[in-house]
Amino acid sequence: MEFEELVEKVVKGEIKLHQVEKYTDKRTATEVRRKALEKKLGVKLEHIGHYSIDPEQLIGRNIENMIGVVQIPMGVAGPLKINGEYAKGEFYIPLATTEGALVASVNRGCSALTEAGGVKTTLIDDKMTRAPLLKCPDARRAREVAEWVKANIDYIQEKAVSKVTRHGKLRGVKPFIVGNNLYLRFEFETGDAMGMNMVTISSEEIMKVIEEEFPDVKYLALSGNLCVDKKPNAMNFINGRGKTVIAEAIIPREIVERKLKTTPELIAEVNYRKNLVGSAQAGSYGFNAHFGNIVGAIFLATGQDEAQITEGSHGITLAEVTPEGDLYISVTMPSLEIGTVGGGTRVPTQREALSIMGVAGGGDPPGTNAKKFAEIVAGAVLAGELSLLAAIAAKHLAKAHKELGR
Amino acid sequence: MEFEELVEKVVKGEIKLHQVEKYTDKRTATEVRRKALEKKLGVKLEHIGHYSIDPEQLIGRNIENMIGVVQIPMGVAGPLKINGEYAKGEFYIPLATTEGALVASVNRGCSALTEAGGVKTTLIDDKMTRAPLLKCPDARRAREVAEWVKANIDYIQEKAVSKVTRHGKLRGVKPFIVGNNLYLRFEFETGDAMGMNMVTISSEEIMKVIEEEFPDVKYLALSGNLCVDKKPNAMNFINGRGKTVIAEAIIPREIVERKLKTTPELIAEVNYRKNLVGSAQAGSYGFNAHFGNIVGAIFLATGQDEAQITEGSHGITLAEVTPEGDLYISVTMPSLEIGTVGGGTRVPTQREALSIMGVAGGGDPPGTNAKKFAEIVAGAVLAGELSLLAAIAAKHLAKAHKELGR
Amino acid sequence: MEFEELVEKVVKGEIKLHQVEKYTDKRTATEVRRKALEKKLGVKLEHIGHYSIDPEQLIGRNIENMIGVVQIPMGVAGPLKINGEYAKGEFYIPLATTEGALVASVNRGCSALTEAGGVKTTLIDDKMTRAPLLKCPDARRAREVAEWVKANIDYIQEKAVSKVTRHGKLRGVKPFIVGNNLYLRFEFETGDAMGMNMVTISSEEIMKVIEEEFPDVKYLALSGNLCVDKKPNAMNFINGRGKTVIAEAIIPREIVERKLKTTPELIAEVNYRKNLVGSAQAGSYGFNAHFGNIVGAIFLATGQDEAQITEGSHGITLAEVTPEGDLYISVTMPSLEIGTVGGGTRVPTQREALSIMGVAGGGDPPGTNAKKFAEIVAGAVLAGELSLLAAIAAKHLAKAHKELGR
Amino acid sequence: MEFEELVEKVVKGEIKLHQVEKYTDKRTATEVRRKALEKKLGVKLEHIGHYSIDPEQLIGRNIENMIGVVQIPMGVAGPLKINGEYAKGEFYIPLATTEGALVASVNRGCSALTEAGGVKTTLIDDKMTRAPLLKCPDARRAREVAEWVKANIDYIQEKAVSKVTRHGKLRGVKPFIVGNNLYLRFEFETGDAMGMNMVTISSEEIMKVIEEEFPDVKYLALSGNLCVDKKPNAMNFINGRGKTVIAEAIIPREIVERKLKTTPELIAEVNYRKNLVGSAQAGSYGFNAHFGNIVGAIFLATGQDEAQITEGSHGITLAEVTPEGDLYISVTMPSLEIGTVGGGTRVPTQREALSIMGVAGGGDPPGTNAKKFAEIVAGAVLAGELSLLAAIAAKHLAKAHKELGR
Repeated sequence: MEFEELVEKVVKGEIKLHQVEKYTDKRTATEVRRKALEKKLGVKLEHIGHYSIDPEQLIGRNIENMIGVVQIPMGVAGPLKINGEYAKGEFYIPLATTEGALVASVNRGCSALTEAGGVKTTLIDDKMTRAPLLKCPDARRAREVAEWVKANIDYIQEKAVSKVTRHGKLRGVKPFIVGNNLYLRFEFETGDAMGMNMVTISSEEIMKVIEEEFPDVKYLALSGNLCVDKKPNAMNFINGRGKTVIAEAIIPREIVERKLKTTPELIAEVNYRKNLVGSAQAGSYGFNAHFGNIVGAIFLATGQDEAQITEGSHGITLAEVTPEGDLYISVTMPSLEIGTVGGGTRVPTQREALSIMGVAGGGDPPGTNAKKFAEIVAGAVLAGELSLLAAIAAKHLAKAHKELGR
Repeated sequence: MEFEELVEKVVKGEIKLHQVEKYTDKRTATEVRRKALEKKLGVKLEHIGHYSIDPEQLIGRNIENMIGVVQIPMGVAGPLKINGEYAKGEFYIPLATTEGALVASVNRGCSALTEAGGVKTTLIDDKMTRAPLLKCPDARRAREVAEWVKANIDYIQEKAVSKVTRHGKLRGVKPFIVGNNLYLRFEFETGDAMGMNMVTISSEEIMKVIEEEFPDVKYLALSGNLCVDKKPNAMNFINGRGKTVIAEAIIPREIVERKLKTTPELIAEVNYRKNLVGSAQAGSYGFNAHFGNIVGAIFLATGQDEAQITEGSHGITLAEVTPEGDLYISVTMPSLEIGTVGGGTRVPTQREALSIMGVAGGGDPPGTNAKKFAEIVAGAVLAGELSLLAAIAAKHLAKAHKELGR
Repeated sequence: MEFEELVEKVVKGEIKLHQVEKYTDKRTATEVRRKALEKKLGVKLEHIGHYSIDPEQLIGRNIENMIGVVQIPMGVAGPLKINGEYAKGEFYIPLATTEGALVASVNRGCSALTEAGGVKTTLIDDKMTRAPLLKCPDARRAREVAEWVKANIDYIQEKAVSKVTRHGKLRGVKPFIVGNNLYLRFEFETGDAMGMNMVTISSEEIMKVIEEEFPDVKYLALSGNLCVDKKPNAMNFINGRGKTVIAEAIIPREIVERKLKTTPELIAEVNYRKNLVGSAQAGSYGFNAHFGNIVGAIFLATGQDEAQITEGSHGITLAEVTPEGDLYISVTMPSLEIGTVGGGTRVPTQREALSIMGVAGGGDPPGTNAKKFAEIVAGAVLAGELSLLAAIAAKHLAKAHKELGR
Repeated sequence: MEFEELVEKVVKGEIKLHQVEKYTDKRTATEVRRKALEKKLGVKLEHIGHYSIDPEQLIGRNIENMIGVVQIPMGVAGPLKINGEYAKGEFYIPLATTEGALVASVNRGCSALTEAGGVKTTLIDDKMTRAPLLKCPDARRAREVAEWVKANIDYIQEKAVSKVTRHGKLRGVKPFIVGNNLYLRFEFETGDAMGMNMVTISSEEIMKVIEEEFPDVKYLALSGNLCVDKKPNAMNFINGRGKTVIAEAIIPREIVERKLKTTPELIAEVNYRKNLVGSAQAGSYGFNAHFGNIVGAIFLATGQDEAQITEGSHGITLAEVTPEGDLYISVTMPSLEIGTVGGGTRVPTQREALSIMGVAGGGDPPGTNAKKFAEIVAGAVLAGELSLLAAIAAKHLAKAHKELGR
């Protein structure tokens, strides 16, 4: 079929948006849909049609009904010196955002931290979880199933997990029983991948083993919402998901005063009254100033799952005056769900952004790239927190916004 | 200075990333930074350099240290029939994501909902909040200040708010006192803008009035974390922020069975055990399957603030079997922070995406475009919830993921 | 029937426990039940049978199937100097508990606070809430009902509330809509009563008015769990219930060092790392050391509702070093549900305990006794927090427990 | 010194309340304090002075500054048939309360449950926790300490725990790190004791071992609020504390209709809209109707720690219509902190109350009495939930309150 004819049929609804690929290649289908929308709605989608990434590589893997791309401005902050266990040295951080002042703010934080000798990062935990839901005859039976699963992790790895993934490894399970419902929160190691797909497929396979072993138990949903994925929640905030990582630094008083135009005491006080007391009264799982901003901008730049910004915004910022009169500052991030392979990391701009940090693709040994990436993200978040707390302390927030935009 | 010389100086660190604009125009500065990074880090940032949006329009308003863009694939779902108070008719929904199967899933939900007669949407509340933090001599004094502010809303509007914004209107305040700390959660009407900048500037101005009136009270931070912005929290989940909106529909049993390959009973049961019981046990503020996915994809496509995906993922999905045997399904979204003017909505691809829904720019009267947009988002979220719950019910989730990618 | 015969029939199950009053007076019925249990179970319930309160006055009002009493040891702490708006002067606080060291600990706090000049208390809010649940055709209709109710508070007071209570006054409503469910969180003034019964009866009456006005709306439950009564929750923690009250004091460094054997700095640090950071990580609504202990012991002594200890344990303790080097300490209690009339306050021992604080019975004007009581409780809680924080700071907790018992 | 002279000196403040024992025996001291208060305050404390329990046994173990007792009416509900693993047979449940209608309501639930064949109870977990707080040089060091502790549980048991308790056994640890703070949530088995004292003393001892092993780490507080004790919190709600226990039953439709005057469908609907949806919107950790009431009344009757009613009110009630049309109902209680030895269980009335259920004192083997007790409590809570849900369903709540008092 000719291009114009295809467009016409889509406009008329004779061919549906998702059926266009039946009649042409993916790149053309993308054009057809955009043109059809333009015609039908009387709008111009010129910029959306401007892209260098290849629909052939994306449709069916990362997107359906593609009409083009959104272009989100990308800036870069840094260099940021990181003294991690995986990330060692100075890094530039790509940030995709439309919030004026954000990159400048993170950049300022990087500058202060780097001058202070850099950020120390520590990975506390690393796991991806999935919690299928099983309906049981009663709680007693649910407990039996849970105990069997706990006692048979190796068997399940072999019988189920190893059949569907080479990279994923089941490392344990934490069961939750509510009445007659059993939620098995499986914990996996997923290498450099964020791992949701891996654990989803693995869990599906594990369910077969359990249904075979316990025919009276009914597997109802692959996720029973105790994973927890893409929802704000105490579970991940407390028990962790993805990377649990801490970044900390001591900033000499002199640097705080000269570069940040404030004092350790004032930053500590703002953090105390705002991030701790204020967030406490708000019933928040985010005892921080704006983790979400930095996490979000890095997630977009690097092809992470944007809905997981939610859990990425969980966490606690501490700021204290040391006995020496300097500033101790830290960010504790319990549930940073990220990867350097799979999903959106394959898209060329995103992959390039990862390469800026030296973490594109799989690590050697596997998992080290994602861990390094986690350390860099935590470092950048620390830079963002430091900068904003300092700005607030100096009452410069509104002024900065006014000058820099939005 | 010549282009190459500039690049060289940036590579050597003689010119810092944020200083490049001092030596050249913004577009060239963007190229210089990207080239410098490529050279310094030995990477290729070719795709990041491919864009049609204009750095001259963006730098200093939406981004700093710009090096290009991230291209995020955009698909479209729909049409979705919406019977709202602002959105009336059939709509296509632009979704920017790299999560395979998401657009297809929302699309399927749109199809079922539209065939069922469409989505009914109801706006429950609409406000943007800012909660500055004041340190008081004691709680008694904090209460006096709070009472004065409550009694002087009109005065404050005139003396402070109206001086810095034409569109923002202070409609009230909810004070919180913790010990000697006073958090004044101001509520504003902000028209078609998401409004954070407006309320930030207004609050700064209000603080001047209060500091004048109460010299013994010390204004410490423009946000005391009770706003709450970009953190998961009970405050917004309970008391709302941005748009509080509900979308609901009744899907005849026949459509559930034919299109969604399952039953109202099974969808209701999955929602009950997963979204209600599971989320309850998780200590979640997201009693839903994946609000964040749809909210996230629309936010990215339309230039919303990505960090506010966090609060957009707050909310509750209900699914019930009606007395007639059909499916009632609803999504309640307490804190959807969106706008159609300002911020990232100005970027061309994002503005085009808004135009697909007919909500680009300001509404007439002001505020109606953002309200219409909120109804469409809620409708799309309902489509996403319906589709995923149905898929889970039919145990097709993992299979769909496997086929469609990631 | 003879006593022994009655006992026999109860033992044999011919007369059920709750039927004994049909055959004899309440006091004798109490004896019969106890004897029957002793006989049937082969146990001795001698001490339970030792009481001076009168079953005739209690059965059918405060208890059913009465068999006697539990005797809980009561101690007294004080004097505590309070500089409140209702409580002015020095007070002794009755505490019923079996936890060794508790009374001694509160006593020590009272002593330090009184020497420091006393506690300043501030009542922030005072209301009792009930949130009936209505099932509506849809959210749109729920919004209409909510708006009507908000606009007709006076009418509802007159048509419903005033018909069933002389003391209760409806002061407003905060509606919550989730899908097709409407929860109307009514706020009442209830004088010196804790008020649950008053607001329950009033809400029942209000439902009649609403059902008449909106015949398509179905009143489903008198409490939809958004009141919130007797469950830990963010709603009350944020929006308050019962008395919202703050107690604060400044303790000169010299007193901290001499009486509490520690320093303001160390108390502030313990409070920061334990009550703020620790509770943050726990996802707690209790950012305090042990509100529940003091609240609980006063509740028991004075006939408050023991299940409301739950909400009484909500709240935040702050401890800071002042610019002068002294200790600022405060407790913020958002949801202290107490009264001086009605319920358990009528029981003689409980009424006597109230009289120790000068708050037995109704105040003049009504409500002032309960407010005074709230200030005293907050003061006592401050004493308990101060004492425990100081003890922890000095690492004396375990030692004190070992010496004093349990 | 003569009695009257002692009284006089206490009135004048020459002898303080806690010093009276220096001059006389404990029983007389109690009388002296009460008389002194009567005289000083001009009140009558006659009933408080009426008791049969022995101050000699209580002062210094369960109470200080004793002046007498509070008499709280005790009723009894039952029999309740329980089919547990520890509790097997029919039980009477002692309830101390002043809330009219409560015992009657629980009694009605017992009756329905027993007729339906009884309650099935399942103990999911059993542990007591303490989480000391250690301040570390940085997070990296905190992780090292945590890893050492995890690897040396047996060593710590031997070197520390076994030295101070014969009954307590350290079974594991879950560490939490926030910045430079390390919280070690130790889990202990504590036999028939609730165990707080045991784990407190053990943790103190463990701290010595850790301080010796890691001299650069500073032990700051025996509880870092991640235990979590006596505060509402997500930690215990999710990860459990004390007994985690589930009670469930299936009530034939006929019994629901005849005895409870309602239907399985209506009870399920009320539970859904109130206990699940309502509590969800409230940000609650109590997805139930009134756990706190029953837990509270049993805690008071049996000498449990009243402040732990808070965590006892955590939990979830489910009510569903079975495929056969009957009612499935369950209560899941994650953090029921109870014991049958130690603390308030030693007081005679409380011990008698325990004997009514056959659980006074230690079990054989140790721990079985407390487990049996947990099953009975869960059963009683189920009875209370069933009864109230049924009453709400039938709109009888307010009416019952009106008739029965308060």
